[in-house]
Amino acid sequence: MSLWSGRFSGVTAEAVKAFTESISFDSRLFRHDIMGSKAHVQMLAETGIIPAKCAKAINAGLDKIEKRIEKGDFTFSNGLEDIHMHIEDALIEAIGKDAGMIHSGRSRNDQVVLDMRLYLRDTIDSIMSGIKELQRQMVRLADANSDAVMPGYTHLQRAQPVLFAHHLLAYIEMFERDVGRFLDCRKRTNVMPLGSGALAGSTLPLDRKITARLLGFPQVSRNSMDAVADRDFECEFLAASAIFAMHISRLSEDIILWVSQEFNFISIDDAFCTGSSLMPHKKNPDIAELARGKTARIYGDLTSLLVLTKGLPLTYNRDLQEDKEPVFDAADTIHKILSVMPEMIASFKINRTAMEKAVQDPAMMTTDLAEQLVKEGMPFRTAHHRVGSLVKWCDKNSRKLDKISLEEMRISIPEAKMHHLQIFCPLASVSKRTATGATAPAQVKKQIRFWKKKLLCPSQRQFGV
Amino acid sequence: MSLWSGRFSGVTAEAVKAFTESISFDSRLFRHDIMGSKAHVQMLAETGIIPAKCAKAINAGLDKIEKRIEKGDFTFSNGLEDIHMHIEDALIEAIGKDAGMIHSGRSRNDQVVLDMRLYLRDTIDSIMSGIKELQRQMVRLADANSDAVMPGYTHLQRAQPVLFAHHLLAYIEMFERDVGRFLDCRKRTNVMPLGSGALAGSTLPLDRKITARLLGFPQVSRNSMDAVADRDFECEFLAASAIFAMHISRLSEDIILWVSQEFNFISIDDAFCTGSSLMPHKKNPDIAELARGKTARIYGDLTSLLVLTKGLPLTYNRDLQEDKEPVFDAADTIHKILSVMPEMIASFKINRTAMEKAVQDPAMMTTDLAEQLVKEGMPFRTAHHRVGSLVKWCDKNSRKLDKISLEEMRISIPEAKMHHLQIFCPLASVSKRTATGATAPAQVKKQIRFWKKKLLCPSQRQFGV
Amino acid sequence: MSLWSGRFSGVTAEAVKAFTESISFDSRLFRHDIMGSKAHVQMLAETGIIPAKCAKAINAGLDKIEKRIEKGDFTFSNGLEDIHMHIEDALIEAIGKDAGMIHSGRSRNDQVVLDMRLYLRDTIDSIMSGIKELQRQMVRLADANSDAVMPGYTHLQRAQPVLFAHHLLAYIEMFERDVGRFLDCRKRTNVMPLGSGALAGSTLPLDRKITARLLGFPQVSRNSMDAVADRDFECEFLAASAIFAMHISRLSEDIILWVSQEFNFISIDDAFCTGSSLMPHKKNPDIAELARGKTARIYGDLTSLLVLTKGLPLTYNRDLQEDKEPVFDAADTIHKILSVMPEMIASFKINRTAMEKAVQDPAMMTTDLAEQLVKEGMPFRTAHHRVGSLVKWCDKNSRKLDKISLEEMRISIPEAKMHHLQIFCPLASVSKRTATGATAPAQVKKQIRFWKKKLLCPSQRQFGV
Amino acid sequence: MSLWSGRFSGVTAEAVKAFTESISFDSRLFRHDIMGSKAHVQMLAETGIIPAKCAKAINAGLDKIEKRIEKGDFTFSNGLEDIHMHIEDALIEAIGKDAGMIHSGRSRNDQVVLDMRLYLRDTIDSIMSGIKELQRQMVRLADANSDAVMPGYTHLQRAQPVLFAHHLLAYIEMFERDVGRFLDCRKRTNVMPLGSGALAGSTLPLDRKITARLLGFPQVSRNSMDAVADRDFECEFLAASAIFAMHISRLSEDIILWVSQEFNFISIDDAFCTGSSLMPHKKNPDIAELARGKTARIYGDLTSLLVLTKGLPLTYNRDLQEDKEPVFDAADTIHKILSVMPEMIASFKINRTAMEKAVQDPAMMTTDLAEQLVKEGMPFRTAHHRVGSLVKWCDKNSRKLDKISLEEMRISIPEAKMHHLQIFCPLASVSKRTATGATAPAQVKKQIRFWKKKLLCPSQRQFGV
Repeated sequence: MSLWSGRFSGVTAEAVKAFTESISFDSRLFRHDIMGSKAHVQMLAETGIIPAKCAKAINAGLDKIEKRIEKGDFTFSNGLEDIHMHIEDALIEAIGKDAGMIHSGRSRNDQVVLDMRLYLRDTIDSIMSGIKELQRQMVRLADANSDAVMPGYTHLQRAQPVLFAHHLLAYIEMFERDVGRFLDCRKRTNVMPLGSGALAGSTLPLDRKITARLLGFPQVSRNSMDAVADRDFECEFLAASAIFAMHISRLSEDIILWVSQEFNFISIDDAFCTGSSLMPHKKNPDIAELARGKTARIYGDLTSLLVLTKGLPLTYNRDLQEDKEPVFDAADTIHKILSVMPEMIASFKINRTAMEKAVQDPAMMTTDLAEQLVKEGMPFRTAHHRVGSLVKWCDKNSRKLDKISLEEMRISIPEAKMHHLQIFCPLASVSKRTATGATAPAQVKKQIRFWKKKLLCPSQRQFGV
Repeated sequence: MSLWSGRFSGVTAEAVKAFTESISFDSRLFRHDIMGSKAHVQMLAETGIIPAKCAKAINAGLDKIEKRIEKGDFTFSNGLEDIHMHIEDALIEAIGKDAGMIHSGRSRNDQVVLDMRLYLRDTIDSIMSGIKELQRQMVRLADANSDAVMPGYTHLQRAQPVLFAHHLLAYIEMFERDVGRFLDCRKRTNVMPLGSGALAGSTLPLDRKITARLLGFPQVSRNSMDAVADRDFECEFLAASAIFAMHISRLSEDIILWVSQEFNFISIDDAFCTGSSLMPHKKNPDIAELARGKTARIYGDLTSLLVLTKGLPLTYNRDLQEDKEPVFDAADTIHKILSVMPEMIASFKINRTAMEKAVQDPAMMTTDLAEQLVKEGMPFRTAHHRVGSLVKWCDKNSRKLDKISLEEMRISIPEAKMHHLQIFCPLASVSKRTATGATAPAQVKKQIRFWKKKLLCPSQRQFGV
Repeated sequence: MSLWSGRFSGVTAEAVKAFTESISFDSRLFRHDIMGSKAHVQMLAETGIIPAKCAKAINAGLDKIEKRIEKGDFTFSNGLEDIHMHIEDALIEAIGKDAGMIHSGRSRNDQVVLDMRLYLRDTIDSIMSGIKELQRQMVRLADANSDAVMPGYTHLQRAQPVLFAHHLLAYIEMFERDVGRFLDCRKRTNVMPLGSGALAGSTLPLDRKITARLLGFPQVSRNSMDAVADRDFECEFLAASAIFAMHISRLSEDIILWVSQEFNFISIDDAFCTGSSLMPHKKNPDIAELARGKTARIYGDLTSLLVLTKGLPLTYNRDLQEDKEPVFDAADTIHKILSVMPEMIASFKINRTAMEKAVQDPAMMTTDLAEQLVKEGMPFRTAHHRVGSLVKWCDKNSRKLDKISLEEMRISIPEAKMHHLQIFCPLASVSKRTATGATAPAQVKKQIRFWKKKLLCPSQRQFGV
Repeated sequence: MSLWSGRFSGVTAEAVKAFTESISFDSRLFRHDIMGSKAHVQMLAETGIIPAKCAKAINAGLDKIEKRIEKGDFTFSNGLEDIHMHIEDALIEAIGKDAGMIHSGRSRNDQVVLDMRLYLRDTIDSIMSGIKELQRQMVRLADANSDAVMPGYTHLQRAQPVLFAHHLLAYIEMFERDVGRFLDCRKRTNVMPLGSGALAGSTLPLDRKITARLLGFPQVSRNSMDAVADRDFECEFLAASAIFAMHISRLSEDIILWVSQEFNFISIDDAFCTGSSLMPHKKNPDIAELARGKTARIYGDLTSLLVLTKGLPLTYNRDLQEDKEPVFDAADTIHKILSVMPEMIASFKINRTAMEKAVQDPAMMTTDLAEQLVKEGMPFRTAHHRVGSLVKWCDKNSRKLDKISLEEMRISIPEAKMHHLQIFCPLASVSKRTATGATAPAQVKKQIRFWKKKLLCPSQRQFGV
């Protein structure tokens, strides 16, 4: 029997129940729903809206229902639309009609927002922990290979030598900003909506501060219509998730390139690869490919939620039921990525020989030559042009930059001196880049120390309420 | 034991299996996978690649596996990545190592594309049938109410009187174009990829035409690298789905407006509404709201697939495994919408009183007045401006357009005559719009007959191969 | 002559220049580009990399170029790809080859990120000011109409009476969260990237802290490869913009409903409406419609940038040139919306008569009746069911809830008493909702005071660096 | 003075004009607008709605206006909202108030849809021609290098040898499907909407077939409300554009990989590359990168239009004005891509030495070995497993597959014979793949002939009405 059977003459069509149900995906909210209900009931008792004895019976009943669901001893069915009705219905069955007190001064409109805020608060914490672990593994890998030099790329063309560790640290920076975004989203998620009722609040003397305190919320929502209508904390979560996934997709692209036979900079442990049903020799970087691919679904989730909420009038509209699946999908996807990425990265074997061979290309040191000329007083643009001419001359004459004579260099750079011929050393090139954020070994080691300190010490409470 | 255990030293990590598996969502392809395998095996036998006896044993084995899966007597697990490996593995268990012949000249790369093409061909047919049924219910409703006049809106402002049936027919046009798009997509889906192997074809003497004939494909793919790499038939399906959903969302918006207390043009049967957990009086148009909301997830699905495939080099990349869930989700969503929309529309009760009251607003006939002046020789822009002045005069003097005297009309329109005062009749207004596609009752009835004929006769084969 | 003409043999094809240029959209960055260059040059001089005299000449030259561009006395052409090359080229023309010193230790890769960060920092500040002004106009409207009661809607069905001011305050809450998001984005935007060079830093002894100080950045980027590769501050800006636009689209939807003939709750001044080319009587809420529509383009902008950056390997790739137009388009669109929305809202005339009539519907007070029964000891679910039965009884007997006798009420609610018949008063209903965030007049007035104080006092520095 | 000045008391605010104008982007429709107007006016004369003399004067006036706009001798301003009003206004100025006859029986609602359909019909034709040219250049390149063998990749790992020409032909297939999609979209675009008026048709005796005939439309729209409300022909165009751009992005990714120092398979002419402002040696594949990046903006355009139209009630809403920019942007972007891609591809120099070296990797022939064992009677799965073990044995013992002895092969494959040692020849591998669509030279040459015939003959009329 539906909640609203009092008012309706017809019964809901079966196809309609199947169409409108959310229990198939919102059942996972049971813990947060029960947690919220218990706090609500305790507040109802403290304010005298319902008798303390009834509150006690209700909350004991809720505890039992929670255990049953956890044990798998609970049947979900389309007949009861959502998790809220399943639990209220089970409660009525368990303790009788006093159970009906639980929904005093509450609507599913504010209840579901509470559930989602509780769920997302936990989810954000768990994601932030996972990102930290990913950063830790990357710092360890950087630390263990802090002197490996490789080509740095722009336009996927070899550009200038960099430390492999410097390349890894770039991703740690991105992930740190991701943590910042999730933390900012958490602030706006951490607001208590209960007491907003269907849209206008309640005529019962609710004390919302009690509920907020019991559930660990630092503040209550300030406008009931906004509280039940808005989903922007979810949009913001999906936006932060999308940006994080974008970073993961870029890291994955780099990994896929590095394990190709052409680059051959790293190899991944067999445990993190899969093979081919047809080609016996294949060993593929599937995790990186799938992680890159899964970025697309998180973008889809974000699109869905933004589209969903666009143009809806106030307050609650049933469209909003569709908010949950994109949020759950993005959260699950991120958790999955974080369940394999750190260990896969820990499994990398670095192929220094291939890196060293790749980085020998003297063209990558042409900027150093131009900047050396600048140090000796030549305007940069002039230096750039002369060195460019030198590159063209070498191309045309099939000569290598580091194998020419001073006379040959002077064809393009009349100011050339002997020491300019010595400039084509990748390690020297790297070492000269000493400013904050640049790739000199001392700089990179300093950054590694910074991150080790920040990430490796266990902190009491990483992310405050 | 994984397919590629020959080549690998380490075992796949459990978290990796959970991350890379697709069996949790591709198991639904079992029928199409088995259908494809049976045709492949028959071709292998006909071309002498495998013995006819083995082929017979394999296909008998496949039939049994199909029945077991249908009965629910089959265990799926992450240990075996996907539906292809589950079935091959079960076959080996059932008939021994000859089962290993099944994958001769085939890769999962071409196999999965075959499965998706078979699946989508069926899905498109089923969606087209559903849309036809939706159109039928709308034609019936239009036919049953072919003389009801209501306000037509632009900018959600009352604009000109139209027939309610005319409004419904607008949606039938949209859905007809949707059918056209799905049909065009079906053409490009209906191409046989098997024989493309991993990417380069096979060294075995496959005869692809046999397989195509057995599976009812009119053509085989022309390039093996394209065949395994491309997903544009799926992108196109999602694009057609998104446009269809957009139409559904617009229809839903109209329905939601019409059942509001303010418009009150129709009412929906209780069986297609739900109520409130808090507010005893509520009866909400949930189906229309959810259908509008579900449009958002289909947009998200389209976004996902387009993003997924962007920038992938040839040929198969593991990212492509993520193609399935958006396709399945969109197909399921459309099927769900089509399972409730036609009946809900059939349940509409039209509130003619409210429509008639709304359409009395004489302002909606000002264009008729201007066009009448045009018929009498006045340039349209002049007529438009004079009638506009009349509206302003009425506004300022709180007069209604259909209650003024000839003298009063002549303040704004010196050319006004007695018959101009009679112009403010909605039914007359509607009846004057007689061109093809306009809202005159004769026109609309002609359209209803056209659609009844097109939709109501059972056709032998609506959508050819 | 292109910057890289030294190295190239062939000349760039004209179609290629047209394809690769960005000057047609990045010319708007000229102020920020020059500001950044001046700081860079001053740092180069302070660190002795270039002579102080040259620095002075360069910066004087830059000032003149800025003035020329401002005056429109400057020619942009595809021949010089982007704003950076236009300015360097003009500088060379103005002061000779010493101008070539300007690019010492700098790449366009770090330069363009600096420009975008400077641009976005300003843009965010200007958007936040605009949102504050929008909030102010809404508070004023709420304050001026603080006692108007209207129906509150869920599912676009009349649900419970609320104050019109309460409805407006819901949007002020949303916009306040938007300001929070823009402010958080500003933190992550406000980081100085210069000195990162092409990707690896520079071999010149740059002092990045000087540049940061001169440009008002509280911190410098910590990793050069990240600094030139990442665009997440722009993604975050677009995400915040999309959520803000979503709020605008919801407000617009409400406005469009309110000005429809059916709702008729408000009217908009002629100055903020447009008419029809055909229908003389039309007056349309175009601004609200367009604002709702423009939300779509901001969603498109966000999609573009996320898609653009997905899967790019480190570091700079030319794809990233496409970051600018979506950012500019979203910023311009928001500025346009903020240029008309506040004044349009200020122009609203409230039609209290229509609101009052709409809110008389006694069904909207059924929750109050159920909650009254709860106060008298009945479990809520029982009360909800009995009141629901009462609604059904009235429906069936075509009776109005506020016109029935006690005996009739007792058919459904045996516990009914005389005072239950008096419950159907909208103003009383509103007044009983006194919890924080609910719609009681005292509560709403308190919120208005809160916002007036927060928004109306001019603050010295609203948004710190 | 605005069109609706008759009815309005207030004047439109300047900021409102700037907000609501579309002239800044719809002015480009002037040719199609005038073409449509001329046909409309001729129909008005033929049906006797306006005098023939007036029609002649109007159309002469329109011709002059078109020439003025083409010459740049025409001022556009926000004061006149859109292209329709600019032209009507200029006409009034030119020939006096008879010009006001032009808008008889027409609304901007049907007029703008006509303009967009005419515009898109031309645009689709031009895009299809461009795609054909791109295909032609790719066929030429394939033909000129029809015997070059290279590694085919899956998961960006070397998989099996393929012909370079085969790889190119894969893209020609994709582009052919794109042409198919644009052609299908053209069918649904090619429908005449004029005569639908604002939404309900006209009370004037229009003859829509005349207008359709004059403008070359094979059919007229069947429902006036649908005709002014729907934009799905534009959505479909953007979907086809997005899929085409996705193909371009994949081709670009392949090109970017091929020109990297690591792959080094092709080089691009200097004329199609650009260099670096900092690094003198750089030569970057900017066009491919930008083309890949521009895919993102087309995805954004599609997102915008789908979001825009979602949930709009019938019929015209002002949101729809925002349809134009995404359509124009996508069309312009595709035109730009097609203006450089074909020539860039024509400029490719193939580095056969690098391809040949890369393809020597014997692991790529392991499938051939397994299939050879299948031909000799071994079940494929057994063969796959044995060859896999051989690969592992070689790995562990640092041996190359093509350098082992028969005895060594027999450790993993007891059935091995001498001829199995000879299997590791890339060209032989390729030659054995002879089925339709596979990579054997004979097959590929057949495909090249097919495409040459299809693409290289000039056809009278490629794409019919």
